[in-house]
Amino acid sequence: MSVQKQEFNFDLTILGGGPAGLSAGIYAARGELKTAIIDISMLGGQPTNYLEIENYPSYSMSGGYELMEKFEEHADKFNVKKFPLENIENVKIKSKEKLIETQDKIFKSKATILATGAKARKLGIPGEEEFAGRGVSYCAVCDGAFFKEKVICVIGGGNSAIEEALYLTKFAAKVYVIHRRNELRADKIVQQRAFKNPQIEFVYDSIPLEILGENTVSSIVIKNLKTNQVKEIKTNGVFPYIGFSANAELFKDKLAKDENGFIITNAKMETSIPGVYAAGDLRNTPLRQVITAAADGAIAATFAIKYIEESK
Amino acid sequence: MSVQKQEFNFDLTILGGGPAGLSAGIYAARGELKTAIIDISMLGGQPTNYLEIENYPSYSMSGGYELMEKFEEHADKFNVKKFPLENIENVKIKSKEKLIETQDKIFKSKATILATGAKARKLGIPGEEEFAGRGVSYCAVCDGAFFKEKVICVIGGGNSAIEEALYLTKFAAKVYVIHRRNELRADKIVQQRAFKNPQIEFVYDSIPLEILGENTVSSIVIKNLKTNQVKEIKTNGVFPYIGFSANAELFKDKLAKDENGFIITNAKMETSIPGVYAAGDLRNTPLRQVITAAADGAIAATFAIKYIEESK
Repeated sequence: MSVQKQEFNFDLTILGGGPAGLSAGIYAARGELKTAIIDISMLGGQPTNYLEIENYPSYSMSGGYELMEKFEEHADKFNVKKFPLENIENVKIKSKEKLIETQDKIFKSKATILATGAKARKLGIPGEEEFAGRGVSYCAVCDGAFFKEKVICVIGGGNSAIEEALYLTKFAAKVYVIHRRNELRADKIVQQRAFKNPQIEFVYDSIPLEILGENTVSSIVIKNLKTNQVKEIKTNGVFPYIGFSANAELFKDKLAKDENGFIITNAKMETSIPGVYAAGDLRNTPLRQVITAAADGAIAATFAIKYIEESK
Repeated sequence: MSVQKQEFNFDLTILGGGPAGLSAGIYAARGELKTAIIDISMLGGQPTNYLEIENYPSYSMSGGYELMEKFEEHADKFNVKKFPLENIENVKIKSKEKLIETQDKIFKSKATILATGAKARKLGIPGEEEFAGRGVSYCAVCDGAFFKEKVICVIGGGNSAIEEALYLTKFAAKVYVIHRRNELRADKIVQQRAFKNPQIEFVYDSIPLEILGENTVSSIVIKNLKTNQVKEIKTNGVFPYIGFSANAELFKDKLAKDENGFIITNAKMETSIPGVYAAGDLRNTPLRQVITAAADGAIAATFAIKYIEESK
């Protein structure tokens, strides 16, 4: 027996409730659009996982969760409707009327902003999936406290890898940073902080091959790319920080993408489909930060308002 | 007798201390660049003139001055050097070493971010300055929401005037468009949308003479250029849209510009000269807001850091 889905009509639907989506919501609703933000989890997005954010201009230091709470309160002020915890089943954005379908709801709108973000890239090695949540983690803030006085391996050499390695020294007795090249990609200030920290040991020119353990992780097997030497490092945790990919599964075949799978937009955040905008980490942006995602959202909403006005 | 100028050496000089410049300073200094912000007035830029800003995401309401104070404190935290109240005489940015000269100082740097903003052309009539931020506004996206169910006069007949008049009808009960000629300059499609809108009334062949009020604007005095008749229109707001230009006098002959005189950048905020970046209102941006200027600054600084690193 088919059940009638509940139908909603909005001017604008926003997929994703991180900095880009919330900022878009603020601008759109302040611009008098009837606006809904739909997210498959609680609002706030990626920053809610970060213990500290010290570069959102005007906040010299804030917890990520606290900062996103302020974004959400700001959106609430302009009466943005929020639909958290919806499982999105279908997205139809090619026709003039945009349609987003969840298990029991249908959202119709005149324009849509895609702001679903990006997610951590997996190592793709044996043991990674098996030990996820039992030693393998992609979120230091979430899981660091489980590794008090233990040994952790961070994989990667960029800002997030080194910043999270530093963070993990608050808990772990020792943190290895395993990086495939012979120097880090992270900002100099971050590198220098890490070099000064006696709890961090750098393992260069090396890639992980396998994660071993019984109930939980007990070691990682790595290979030196210069010497081809394979060795095992005893560790209780593995934190991969090797990159991000766009959360674009629901619409990846509908929109123009770059070589890494990020949605292509112009400076107005317009995608290849009229009335569909992309903002934040999932687009081909040169920098992925709270401030840049929020700016993207503001721009996308402003041009969505004009698009709807002109389509009348 | 010639006086020896005091010489300073920085990694990065930033011209302009508004949202773009301060955000660039925060990102650059946090990225370990020795950074100077030089402004021909106090830091804070345009927003310091705004009584209320309600669309910088996370601040649902802030005074413009207060918000920019937070930006400045944030820059202070990372030890950005500030040089307010300098009269800039010369900018040499074509060679590898960038040079900024004031009356008594020379700043040398490896890279420069231009963030000197833009300015709206003023009407130049009594009351305009007095009621700026108290009924007189040059930004519909910023201030339109403060005029719900009120009366607004837009001055001008070009695209931006008519587009902003249309935008303002979302809020205001009535919008007068006062234009000195007997037909609009805006694109036909924009004109037609405006003609269809019952909330807009056109007042042709007329120029504003004076803005009147007590604490806030209460009326505008206009003169018909054909009949010489002078009359007063009751209004709560005056939005002049008679032109907008980049503050680029110091470097306008050195960099690629668009047809309106704004500095052309790519998504990384790179200009036509290596090591020279532009951020915020003075570049060819699709939206001029605190959030977008701050994002520009963050991007410009991030790529300036990489440029300097790579130039070593």
